[in-house]
Amino acid sequence: MSRLWKQETAKALENFGPGGLPRQLIRAYGEVKRAALAAVHRHDPELWTEEAAAAIAGACTAIIRGDHDDAFPISLSQGGAGTSIHLNVNEVISSLVEQSCGCSLDPLEDLARFQSTNDTFATAVNVALLRGLAEIEKQVIALQEKLVRMETEYDAVLMTGRTEMQDALPLGLGQLFGSWAGMAERDRWRLSKLAERIREVPLGGTAIGTCFNAPRDYMNDALRTLRSITGLPLARSQNLPDAVAHKDSLGELASGYALAAGNLLKIAGDLLYYTSSPVGEFQHPDLQWGSSIMPVKVNPVLLEFVQGLALRVEGDGRTSCVYARESRLQLNSMLPFLAESIFRQESALSAALKALCRFLDEVKINTQRMEANLASSPALLNALLPKLGYHRLKPLINEFAAQPPRDFEEFRRRAAAVLDLDPALLDGWLSPEELIGQSF
Amino acid sequence: MSRLWKQETAKALENFGPGGLPRQLIRAYGEVKRAALAAVHRHDPELWTEEAAAAIAGACTAIIRGDHDDAFPISLSQGGAGTSIHLNVNEVISSLVEQSCGCSLDPLEDLARFQSTNDTFATAVNVALLRGLAEIEKQVIALQEKLVRMETEYDAVLMTGRTEMQDALPLGLGQLFGSWAGMAERDRWRLSKLAERIREVPLGGTAIGTCFNAPRDYMNDALRTLRSITGLPLARSQNLPDAVAHKDSLGELASGYALAAGNLLKIAGDLLYYTSSPVGEFQHPDLQWGSSIMPVKVNPVLLEFVQGLALRVEGDGRTSCVYARESRLQLNSMLPFLAESIFRQESALSAALKALCRFLDEVKINTQRMEANLASSPALLNALLPKLGYHRLKPLINEFAAQPPRDFEEFRRRAAAVLDLDPALLDGWLSPEELIGQSF
Amino acid sequence: MSRLWKQETAKALENFGPGGLPRQLIRAYGEVKRAALAAVHRHDPELWTEEAAAAIAGACTAIIRGDHDDAFPISLSQGGAGTSIHLNVNEVISSLVEQSCGCSLDPLEDLARFQSTNDTFATAVNVALLRGLAEIEKQVIALQEKLVRMETEYDAVLMTGRTEMQDALPLGLGQLFGSWAGMAERDRWRLSKLAERIREVPLGGTAIGTCFNAPRDYMNDALRTLRSITGLPLARSQNLPDAVAHKDSLGELASGYALAAGNLLKIAGDLLYYTSSPVGEFQHPDLQWGSSIMPVKVNPVLLEFVQGLALRVEGDGRTSCVYARESRLQLNSMLPFLAESIFRQESALSAALKALCRFLDEVKINTQRMEANLASSPALLNALLPKLGYHRLKPLINEFAAQPPRDFEEFRRRAAAVLDLDPALLDGWLSPEELIGQSF
Amino acid sequence: MSRLWKQETAKALENFGPGGLPRQLIRAYGEVKRAALAAVHRHDPELWTEEAAAAIAGACTAIIRGDHDDAFPISLSQGGAGTSIHLNVNEVISSLVEQSCGCSLDPLEDLARFQSTNDTFATAVNVALLRGLAEIEKQVIALQEKLVRMETEYDAVLMTGRTEMQDALPLGLGQLFGSWAGMAERDRWRLSKLAERIREVPLGGTAIGTCFNAPRDYMNDALRTLRSITGLPLARSQNLPDAVAHKDSLGELASGYALAAGNLLKIAGDLLYYTSSPVGEFQHPDLQWGSSIMPVKVNPVLLEFVQGLALRVEGDGRTSCVYARESRLQLNSMLPFLAESIFRQESALSAALKALCRFLDEVKINTQRMEANLASSPALLNALLPKLGYHRLKPLINEFAAQPPRDFEEFRRRAAAVLDLDPALLDGWLSPEELIGQSF
Repeated sequence: MSRLWKQETAKALENFGPGGLPRQLIRAYGEVKRAALAAVHRHDPELWTEEAAAAIAGACTAIIRGDHDDAFPISLSQGGAGTSIHLNVNEVISSLVEQSCGCSLDPLEDLARFQSTNDTFATAVNVALLRGLAEIEKQVIALQEKLVRMETEYDAVLMTGRTEMQDALPLGLGQLFGSWAGMAERDRWRLSKLAERIREVPLGGTAIGTCFNAPRDYMNDALRTLRSITGLPLARSQNLPDAVAHKDSLGELASGYALAAGNLLKIAGDLLYYTSSPVGEFQHPDLQWGSSIMPVKVNPVLLEFVQGLALRVEGDGRTSCVYARESRLQLNSMLPFLAESIFRQESALSAALKALCRFLDEVKINTQRMEANLASSPALLNALLPKLGYHRLKPLINEFAAQPPRDFEEFRRRAAAVLDLDPALLDGWLSPEELIGQSF
Repeated sequence: MSRLWKQETAKALENFGPGGLPRQLIRAYGEVKRAALAAVHRHDPELWTEEAAAAIAGACTAIIRGDHDDAFPISLSQGGAGTSIHLNVNEVISSLVEQSCGCSLDPLEDLARFQSTNDTFATAVNVALLRGLAEIEKQVIALQEKLVRMETEYDAVLMTGRTEMQDALPLGLGQLFGSWAGMAERDRWRLSKLAERIREVPLGGTAIGTCFNAPRDYMNDALRTLRSITGLPLARSQNLPDAVAHKDSLGELASGYALAAGNLLKIAGDLLYYTSSPVGEFQHPDLQWGSSIMPVKVNPVLLEFVQGLALRVEGDGRTSCVYARESRLQLNSMLPFLAESIFRQESALSAALKALCRFLDEVKINTQRMEANLASSPALLNALLPKLGYHRLKPLINEFAAQPPRDFEEFRRRAAAVLDLDPALLDGWLSPEELIGQSF
Repeated sequence: MSRLWKQETAKALENFGPGGLPRQLIRAYGEVKRAALAAVHRHDPELWTEEAAAAIAGACTAIIRGDHDDAFPISLSQGGAGTSIHLNVNEVISSLVEQSCGCSLDPLEDLARFQSTNDTFATAVNVALLRGLAEIEKQVIALQEKLVRMETEYDAVLMTGRTEMQDALPLGLGQLFGSWAGMAERDRWRLSKLAERIREVPLGGTAIGTCFNAPRDYMNDALRTLRSITGLPLARSQNLPDAVAHKDSLGELASGYALAAGNLLKIAGDLLYYTSSPVGEFQHPDLQWGSSIMPVKVNPVLLEFVQGLALRVEGDGRTSCVYARESRLQLNSMLPFLAESIFRQESALSAALKALCRFLDEVKINTQRMEANLASSPALLNALLPKLGYHRLKPLINEFAAQPPRDFEEFRRRAAAVLDLDPALLDGWLSPEELIGQSF
Repeated sequence: MSRLWKQETAKALENFGPGGLPRQLIRAYGEVKRAALAAVHRHDPELWTEEAAAAIAGACTAIIRGDHDDAFPISLSQGGAGTSIHLNVNEVISSLVEQSCGCSLDPLEDLARFQSTNDTFATAVNVALLRGLAEIEKQVIALQEKLVRMETEYDAVLMTGRTEMQDALPLGLGQLFGSWAGMAERDRWRLSKLAERIREVPLGGTAIGTCFNAPRDYMNDALRTLRSITGLPLARSQNLPDAVAHKDSLGELASGYALAAGNLLKIAGDLLYYTSSPVGEFQHPDLQWGSSIMPVKVNPVLLEFVQGLALRVEGDGRTSCVYARESRLQLNSMLPFLAESIFRQESALSAALKALCRFLDEVKINTQRMEANLASSPALLNALLPKLGYHRLKPLINEFAAQPPRDFEEFRRRAAAVLDLDPALLDGWLSPEELIGQSF
């Protein structure tokens, strides 16, 4: 079978080197072309025969489906603001139409009619990003829900709350998970807001958003059709010169992903601490061989995987923001690089979310160690301070400093003795309600 | 008069060096303390005499008003998660109370009652940031409105639209301003959303968000009072361990400012191009001496000022995001640095917005040069292409390449002659409606 | 043929997903293993038969050569500090040895003898980076030399020097190229210094740089052999616990690449300005179709390609630096991500350098436009100012403002007339020696 | 006394707001002006009387000394590439000369003779940065030397080496300090190399590096004089158009500071871990009150201070690099912002180095806890593995898992019993020589 792409794609390969367009963009551009070309046909039914129009639709559908992904050999890393991508798509449609019905359609004269790279590529990018965003949202929701379930499941377990790496006050393990769920909840909210902007597309704005040469009925038809094909709530920007030129909405998306990554870094960092040998409150699942020298060592590989990926999402987020504001005059010619950078963020963020969820599924929580750590810690003594005052408590502080209790039972027994207190009173003071505010 | 601050502030000065807290934070912390201590008093009327309670309120009011800013000599650059700031405030209140009524209140036992640095300092930071955000919003709205006015004012002026730095198609000068207004509109929308998160505060959560030792009636009273004192729509976070530990909302604020700065960079970059000697479509106001060698040189000083400031807002935005996600376990001990970094963003963004607005007020728009540039550019010929096709247009392209027309009149006259066209027809094709889509 | 990798690689695939190790790392790790295992064999000749030892060497050689790249299916994006990569290599060697001589060698007991991931993987990374650095150096030298040649070639061409985007003073086109060559020269110097650090490797330090379990003769032999196999001037770090734990040298490499990228951004940005329609002093080669609407538009695709790539090198440079300083205690577990990030920088920087060199080869310099722009600019008048003073020059300034001269000849003729000057005197003042300091 | 600054400074204040130039820059610019104006005077002795020349020198000396710092009220945050700073300096010199001898010198005609902002301000910036760099170098050397001393002092203390937060193998405490010293040593080397570039200045290059209007003898004299006044090894750049336009050397300086900050972050992060309650191997000095709720809590305030500052140095380093590559055409108009950003890095890095050194002076090392942690850790058992093999060791592993030994003595005693080994043999295996490679 002959190559589906033609001379302009060949030039792009020569100028920018090989690569391969990502699936989600091929699909989205196929959808945009199918919608736009159907609208062209309806605007000017004389232009192509019905057979040719049907062949165009069929070609686009095959592209959307992924039948010809290897016909898009160029990389998103390219100059020219996406022109080569637009032409690659047009050349492939032209070849497929010729194969299917023998009609010869010019990639420019026919298949770019009323369309510029600057409005169609930008639209395809947004379509692809909107879908990616929906996927990420789903994963963030899954994480949030998992953490909320763990909040409930562990609401009776006490552990040591620590500030500035120092033991501070008792904390509920459920509260720990709940605090993480709070971050996921905000991420979810942020991401849902982002979709409102990304859904605005410049389709019909042609080269600089003045809609030069694009008939109004074509514009409306193309957008309506694209909405129907994609099932996405797309809207035309009310300010097309702005929508073609400016990509701060994509910078906002990139920042939103970076914030979510920052939250994953917080959780993974805490978990690394909790799995560290001297702490031992969580145990990493034993997923792979750790060390030839240390046969029982279990390495926190999932947490490190999350860290590495999340740092990439953050780093690429910064880079995406730079691309996003590198618009000049009436266009952002960095859009191919920008799209590539956000796709990379998406993919890393998705893998990080998946890895963290798996970790939470498989982690072993060492509640005995949590109890031992808390019982032997000044944090539990601190909780008695407002009741007894420092002077009355001091003998116990000294005794426990010399020989820390190993569990709550020992703590209670020895404390009641040293302080000469009714154990029931002590039990009340040391109840979760008092210690970690379950009553609120 | 004796120093209002005492030994803990002195230690902080020794440990971290001098600085001086920013006004907006002193004010906000004064408000938080006034609200919290009033609630403490109402919770336990026995604790202090009415006279002492009144003196506390008076001291806080004086601090809020700015009477004692030099009593806060430490810098926000400090370790300890803000403890030194909390103590500085308490020491000053204690001194002022002693001065006013002779009552001796302990900075810790009395003035930190039911309060931790971790909930009160975080609350004060949010109060200050919320006010700063409102100011920035106002300025963004002013920029947007100015640009919208300019969009209307210049809707009849044609200029050259350029993509990839190349002349492309005619553009309305009004459309240029309108496209910039689009960015400002999105910034406005983003900033307004940010306030919804910043207004959630952890007041009452004490050290790790478990509300340890804080009575419920105190918590409710303190927040209600703070709302009343500040006039801000503050709410208590529904997830206090999260609100104490995590600062991604502040990272989001920092990112929002960075995005606004990126938009200013776009506008300033375009304007620098337009004011550049070979382009000359805008002229920078002559605000100061340019060069000893070049007496007529007018330097684009306001635009460079905007650029320098906006790059700082972006850079500090990245740093703010790092501080924001450097939470460890139950606290973010970087909060003083984080607050300092966002205050710096605020101040630079405000100055940049002000400078850009002033530039837009004083800029001289050279519409004659815009006309000359467009008339002599292939961009105007491009506009005839869909009407006439390349072959019929070619003689005109060649003639104009050899000798470009200097204004629209010459373009029309010579084009009509070469193309042998009815001038009225040509006028229609070259009308703004046709060229820049005013009909949409 | 059966799969060469075994269970630990399978686990890594399950934990981290598929990917494929980069060629340069496979090669380098093959070299490290060949050197280390030869040294193990010489240290303890009883351990393996000569046949097995020969088979090990053969397996490594095949891996080095690239015969089995598809046997390394995992990605560098992984947790576990590279353990999975080490095991993947060991499993492949074990399989190849079994295939070639039937000997069964254990990937851990035999092939990891005296070796930890932490010293061998880190060594392999440095070997690969050292080679990549040499390639980048070559390309930077090629750019520098090209610019130096252009400096000479164009030393007689005058153009307009501009500061703050405003015409300022005459500049030699050769000086422009020479100033760019200055940046390339510094990059060259920086890169050459970087090699001095990267060549220090921790081979023999085992898990934490204490050389636990590694015999001294093995260590010396392994390094000597690796030097010989690679032909690289490798040295053992004098501080092995440091060399295993800390990667600031790689952060320095990443920063060096980022600085080089920043310099490319400067050059590309200037060239974009010079190719912009209203300036037109350089013309971008016509490499691909520009626009369906604007048939004569030539887009600056190579320059945009350089920009997009260089921004990536910068962005990834920041990310690399974060990975590089994310060491914790005795190890940097982010090393796989760090290596991946620097490889990505390398590859983008190399493509950017290539594209810029090609641009310089193919660019058309419009010296006529340079002359016209300078002749009509106040910049040339400025050059007369120190000779004549502002008052005497003023009539000429006014006349030229009204009707700018189109070339040097017209400038000279009209200036001599208005100023009533001996043309020879004027010629002296307007000579390149006077204007652009060729005498220095 | 009347204001020393005049109308151009007033305009800058109006355009950019107040600020105050930093001391180090005022001093350096005073030095540059003193050198340049002395050279002007020698080149053209007729220009000013000897009395005026002496008054100029006196004025510069007073500025250098810091007598008039409040006469420089503007901020480094400004547009115009430093022109306002140059004029501020010239206005102050002019005022001082008038005060001292009644001579009226024009800030431009007289005091800017042969000088542009673009060469003199850039030279002053480099002079100031070179001095700052020397200070930082001294502090890095002090840190390195302190760590080297600690390496020796603690070479006999064993602790737990940890990778991926897990106990791994025994490590010498001296090796820990030595590994940190390795980072400081590289920083020292890097910083010393940076000075080689910063010492190259563009003095005499005037506006665009073509030396327009600057006599050669003036240029040589000015540089020679500046060298003598400053005592710094300044050299004139061999490529003046490059030196005026490009600031990648300052980006390199900023990157070098950021790398040093990254190393401080590593050390501070490790120390925070070591001071954490469950680890407790280091104890933070008790420098200030920790918590009202937790009276015995000692917060790691110095380490957090180091972290906050170091993150700023990193963040500002990125921003500095952006300013540094924002050159356009023949100038970098961001130089004032760039200088400000690097000064900020300098100051934060210096404070961080000082705080870390103080921490190391005052830290309490808990060697008993180090011994207990190691004795009870699998890390020590790992050290026996190569001697005994996993099967023989297993009973001991199980026994110690059930009841970990509390110190080395208990470890030895119980291990000898369980393994039925000669205690002397065991002592050899557990000697520092064997465990941490002291023999190398």
